Parts: sequence; C-alpha cells; structure tokens
Amino acid sequence: MSAMPAERQQLADDEVAARAGLAARVRELAEAAILTGADPAEAAAVADEVEALTARLAVGRSEAPPYVVEHTGVMERHSANPVTGTLNPFAPPVDLGVTPDGAVRGEFTLSPLYEGPPTYVHGGVSAMVLDQALGMAAAVSGTPGMTATLELRYRRPTPLGVPLLIEAKFSRLEGRKIWASGSIAGPDGRVTVEATAMFIQPQRFVTSGR
Amino acid sequence: MSAMPAERQQLADDEVAARAGLAARVRELAEAAILTGADPAEAAAVADEVEALTARLAVGRSEAPPYVVEHTGVMERHSANPVTGTLNPFAPPVDLGVTPDGAVRGEFTLSPLYEGPPTYVHGGVSAMVLDQALGMAAAVSGTPGMTATLELRYRRPTPLGVPLLIEAKFSRLEGRKIWASGSIAGPDGRVTVEATAMFIQPQRFVTSGR
Repeated sequence: MSAMPAERQQLADDEVAARAGLAARVRELAEAAILTGADPAEAAAVADEVEALTARLAVGRSEAPPYVVEHTGVMERHSANPVTGTLNPFAPPVDLGVTPDGAVRGEFTLSPLYEGPPTYVHGGVSAMVLDQALGMAAAVSGTPGMTATLELRYRRPTPLGVPLLIEAKFSRLEGRKIWASGSIAGPDGRVTVEATAMFIQPQRFVTSGR
Repeated sequence: MSAMPAERQQLADDEVAARAGLAARVRELAEAAILTGADPAEAAAVADEVEALTARLAVGRSEAPPYVVEHTGVMERHSANPVTGTLNPFAPPVDLGVTPDGAVRGEFTLSPLYEGPPTYVHGGVSAMVLDQALGMAAAVSGTPGMTATLELRYRRPTPLGVPLLIEAKFSRLEGRKIWASGSIAGPDGRVTVEATAMFIQPQRFVTSGR
C-alpha cells in the first residue's frame, strides 16, 4: 500500500541536537517567508539560496524520517512527528509531557503559519494537535493504538500568538478499544476546543504470547 | 483575545508568484532537513546559512500572513492557509477545486513531514485537510462558517508518498448551521478517512440588511 520503505536513520544525542537546531532554523525561515515584505526580486534571490541549501542537505538522504535512540536504548519516533517533533520543521512543536497521574499536558504557542480564520488558529490544526495529545494519553495508559474515531467540538475561536494549554487523559478500555478525551484552552483558561477519540490497539500488542 | 493585529499585505500577481516560489523552496528545504544524512557539523553549518536568509527576509515583515488581490479585485486569504496555501511553506499544499455540481475535490500527495504511524499519514493531518475541504464545501454553497463540530472515522491507514483523493460536499442548512461531509481515498480508490462537520455562520452574514 505505501510507497515508503522502512529504512531509518537512528540518531544519537549529538546528531539529534544538530538536527533539532536545523529544524528550528527552518521553522523560523518558513515564518519569515510568509510574513516578509521583500520585493519579488529579493524573494526570488533568497529562494535560489534556499534551493542551494536543500542540495547541500541531499547527502545521505533517507526516504523516511529518523528515529532517535534514547539513553535507555529505546528507539522513539516522536521526534520526527508533525505535532511534537523537534526534528520536524513543520511541527510547532508542541512539548507534551505526562503528569504524575498519567494525564498528558503541554503549553504551546502557534505562529501565523497556522492561521485559519483571521487572527485565529485553523480548526484543522487544533484537530491535529488534539489527535496527537489524545493518542499519547491512550499510549501512556499502556495501550497505544491507531485513531479510529475523533470528535471535535469547537466552543470558541483559538487565538494565535498566545500561550495555549492542551490537556488529555485516558478514559476507558474495552478489549482492543481505548477512549481518551482532552481540550485546548486559551490564556484566560476558557476551553476553546474539546475532543474525544477512540483508538484501536493493533492485534500484535494484544496477543502477548507472541 | 488575540495578540495578532489585522494589518495585512495585499499581494499582486508578480508578488504572489515570487512568494509562492519562495514557499515551495522552503517546503523542499524542510523535507530535506528531516531526511538528511548530513553530519552534525554540516547540519549546524547549513542552519547558520538558513538563519542568515531569515534575517534577509525580515525586511518589511508583517505580523500576519498576506491576502491576495485577485484579477476581479476580490481579496482572498486561502493562499496563506496551512492546508491549501501556496504561500505557506507548511501547507502540502492541497489544491482544492470546485466541480460543476458544487463539490470540492482535490488530489494531493503527502511528504514524510506528515508521518504519524510508520509509513502512514498522521491521523491529525488527515483531520486538518478534511476540515479545510468540508469548510470550503460549506462556503461554496454560499454559507461560509466557522467549524463547530468535526467528526472523523478512520477506516484504514492513509499512505504517504502516493496520490490521495479528497472530496467534500455540502449536506444541509438549518438557520445559521451548515453541514458538510467528505472523505480521503487512497490510490486504490478505497476510502481511508470519512468526515462530517457542522459549521456556524457568523451573525453578520445572516443579517443581510446591514
């Protein structure tokens, strides 16, 4: 089904630091590119320079994002994720942590790159961030799964450029189905978007004998 | 509530072409940055060059994305959108068109930047693209609105790197509420994600006397 092979780079600490720095600079460039007042000739000149840097990065290029090898030897792939990934220039990135009681929580600010209605976050971007947080809440409960259903209720517009709070928690488990819920709130503490999701555990995680 | 002012650049044709070219090159750079096999020293050297280009683009920088002035004199803001925007380096971009019967339709391919489960599209990215398409289907029916609810059903994984088809259409209207539905399908024609959404028309579009 997929055209992408499974071969992955496995990054060590010093590589992660350099790549995260590169991703952060590309993220800033993307924001500068959409907000710039440069005239067409200067925009085209900068575009040529960007193309040259892309060519420099072609060395040893993989077909899929890297995994990160943690101190513990565990391989993790959230570092390349489009929501949380410090290695992914497209990710805001949202820094999601786990509280002592197993809830997922993070504070983040969205740049003008994520604008939908004027001055507000694109409704689809809020959905994207919530899917990630709810999936992580399901995973920290010990039962990771693929999203099966995701329901979003938009209570009020979510503002750009100010700190937002995202929270998510595991709700319940029935066989291979796991439910989680969560929300995004603005700096005034009022919830802007609520979400509920159901995830389905892949069969291989259930048959513990294998 | 929002920290973003409303001041916007209004771009003419030649500016749009140069900015879209710049956004396309930054999009390629982002993909190269996550897939590169460059060693830490080279990644850091390229990051420094990227930072210098960001500084060059600081000239006349706005605080919000631009609008595009069309031939007809109409101002449109989809060009900076995180889903469809050719001016937005983070947009894939998805080229959504309207069919003669008023349905929204587009073919698009997602790069490794949008990966969730290995080799598959992040569930939240599918949600983001569907929110945009359903909102556009509601808008072409003559009744644009803000997303109020969005419900997604994931039927099977959506593959990266191959052409995907998205379709959406207006369902019904009840006062200020507008429903739309749609789906994403893989190259084999099978639906991978289905969505239903309800949008609410802002009051100012309803009170036609003002």
